[in-house]
Amino acid sequence: MRIVLDAMGTDASPAPDVAGAVLAARELKATILLVGDDTRVRQELAKHNTKGLDIQIVHASQAVTMDDKPAQVGKAKPDSSMHVGLRLVRDGLADAFVTAGNTGAAHAIAMLFSLHRISGIKRPALTAIFPFNGRLLTVLDVGANTDSKPEWLAQFALMGHIYARDVLHLANPRVGLLSNGEEKGKGSQLVQEAAPLLQHMPINFIGNSEPKHVLYGEVDVVVCDGFVGNILVKTFEASTRYLVNVIRDELRHNVFTKAGALLARPAFNRVRRRIDTREIGGAPLLGVNGVVIVAHGSSDATAIKNALRQACQAVQGRLIARIEEGLAMTDGDNQPLQSSEHESH
Amino acid sequence: MRIVLDAMGTDASPAPDVAGAVLAARELKATILLVGDDTRVRQELAKHNTKGLDIQIVHASQAVTMDDKPAQVGKAKPDSSMHVGLRLVRDGLADAFVTAGNTGAAHAIAMLFSLHRISGIKRPALTAIFPFNGRLLTVLDVGANTDSKPEWLAQFALMGHIYARDVLHLANPRVGLLSNGEEKGKGSQLVQEAAPLLQHMPINFIGNSEPKHVLYGEVDVVVCDGFVGNILVKTFEASTRYLVNVIRDELRHNVFTKAGALLARPAFNRVRRRIDTREIGGAPLLGVNGVVIVAHGSSDATAIKNALRQACQAVQGRLIARIEEGLAMTDGDNQPLQSSEHESH
Repeated sequence: MRIVLDAMGTDASPAPDVAGAVLAARELKATILLVGDDTRVRQELAKHNTKGLDIQIVHASQAVTMDDKPAQVGKAKPDSSMHVGLRLVRDGLADAFVTAGNTGAAHAIAMLFSLHRISGIKRPALTAIFPFNGRLLTVLDVGANTDSKPEWLAQFALMGHIYARDVLHLANPRVGLLSNGEEKGKGSQLVQEAAPLLQHMPINFIGNSEPKHVLYGEVDVVVCDGFVGNILVKTFEASTRYLVNVIRDELRHNVFTKAGALLARPAFNRVRRRIDTREIGGAPLLGVNGVVIVAHGSSDATAIKNALRQACQAVQGRLIARIEEGLAMTDGDNQPLQSSEHESH
Repeated sequence: MRIVLDAMGTDASPAPDVAGAVLAARELKATILLVGDDTRVRQELAKHNTKGLDIQIVHASQAVTMDDKPAQVGKAKPDSSMHVGLRLVRDGLADAFVTAGNTGAAHAIAMLFSLHRISGIKRPALTAIFPFNGRLLTVLDVGANTDSKPEWLAQFALMGHIYARDVLHLANPRVGLLSNGEEKGKGSQLVQEAAPLLQHMPINFIGNSEPKHVLYGEVDVVVCDGFVGNILVKTFEASTRYLVNVIRDELRHNVFTKAGALLARPAFNRVRRRIDTREIGGAPLLGVNGVVIVAHGSSDATAIKNALRQACQAVQGRLIARIEEGLAMTDGDNQPLQSSEHESH
């Protein structure tokens, strides 16, 4: 298997990216193609023991930054590491692409300049994977689209179902539609129009899910518009971080609570690991015609390694073929994709 | 001051409601009008020492339940404690109404059968108040409306500003528009259309706010559509509860972490109080022509007492008059409310 890593991705690139590639090449027995500035990547790689590892460098003269505007970078930087890396996947020279760079830019370059979408897919969805109570939760869309149409949500549900089943290996994943109430008839107009479409998808649709159902493990895949999903995911991250800070603050209160904190430290370390999304890797961009994983810009070597492992798992799970098969199943006569004519209204 | 309390509100009514009224009458030196089934309320009240307290009972032959449909209950139960209580405020016989009952029903009965909206207000907003780092955060709308229009959000911003300033006594409260990114141009169509309207409001509008800015105390009033606000608030509540459970679980791991937990218990108790919304009271329904506070159905006596105190503070802050004054300020020529013609499109 050959996985491309954008060596210019992380905020501190290329050091964490290259270190992550080394870890991954050792652990995964895969070929890692490091795409970026040849000289800088080579210098960085020389700091590691790469004996016996299959790591190749592919030169790209440009790099996308976090300040680059997604709408402009596709044309403005045609030889960026993202362009070069994604083209390797498009041309069949690699199986998957991983970057910790600008999410919007990766989305735009993948969609408009290299992989394009899987035939039949209306919009790709950025997909967050969270560890919850020993299971993995899939949330999509978390930011690729705002103002989604019901038909897009139905496809997000299908893709989330397939990712959970074939990559995360959950049996019969429960798919919920994020809403402000469980009852039928609750929700925004989008939710009310999407619910019957999800009902007809070849998935285990359990109906509307509120945030508490999501966080208490009653659902495996959460479907929502990208604006709402982004708020959901960022609120979860900010809330847990906020609470951890409040607890740390209160534990410093006096010598007894400080002693208690010291004794309890191993427990707190396990808590941190249980809610640490870096263990997972990154966010798959589902719907583009190739495996694309976007990791956080602040990723360290371990997070990059995990994102590369995640890419391997998606390739092993034959993600793209499974989505194509799933789409084919929904093309029949009474299937919701027939209602795509609505999109024009 | 005369505050009406729906005695049939909480899930365990009338016991916590009546107990809360007794606490409030003692603490607030206000007259509390308990509205509900005369016999049951009288029986409950007899369990308390009410000497010197000004508590009156007003009979209502019906009660709204959590299962009642808001759209039907207005006509179906014309003598419910909500109808009777809200009419007391409408008729000038009381200054504010507090209930821990069905939020949707309170909204419908207030809007359609008693108080109606403040003249010029397009939609009322359910407003959550959260304690954060020793300050109070105001979030609206958290569920009264879905699929809001930009003009509604501009009015929510104005009402949130007034509540934070005149009831919570924050000087120059910072008002943010909830979005998936800080940059101008980020956000759903609603957010992008609402932002320029908020810009022209007589408030301290600081622009788009992400969940992290909200949770790190960089904003005092968060404005959003009711669907999104509901997801925000419920995700915060579910996330903190989830994390507390994970921590409790890990602290039980072995004798050392258990000992640590024991020593640190006072700190955890303080943490719980710092994130406990029951300290605040309830959610004001801003925009109806009278002070209405909706508390949680699971409220205990203390939470009810706090909601009654909150109602007093809103009356003392002359909330309704302040909103009317604020609206008048935005009726000038170059003010955003002129753009209300958009509503028809």
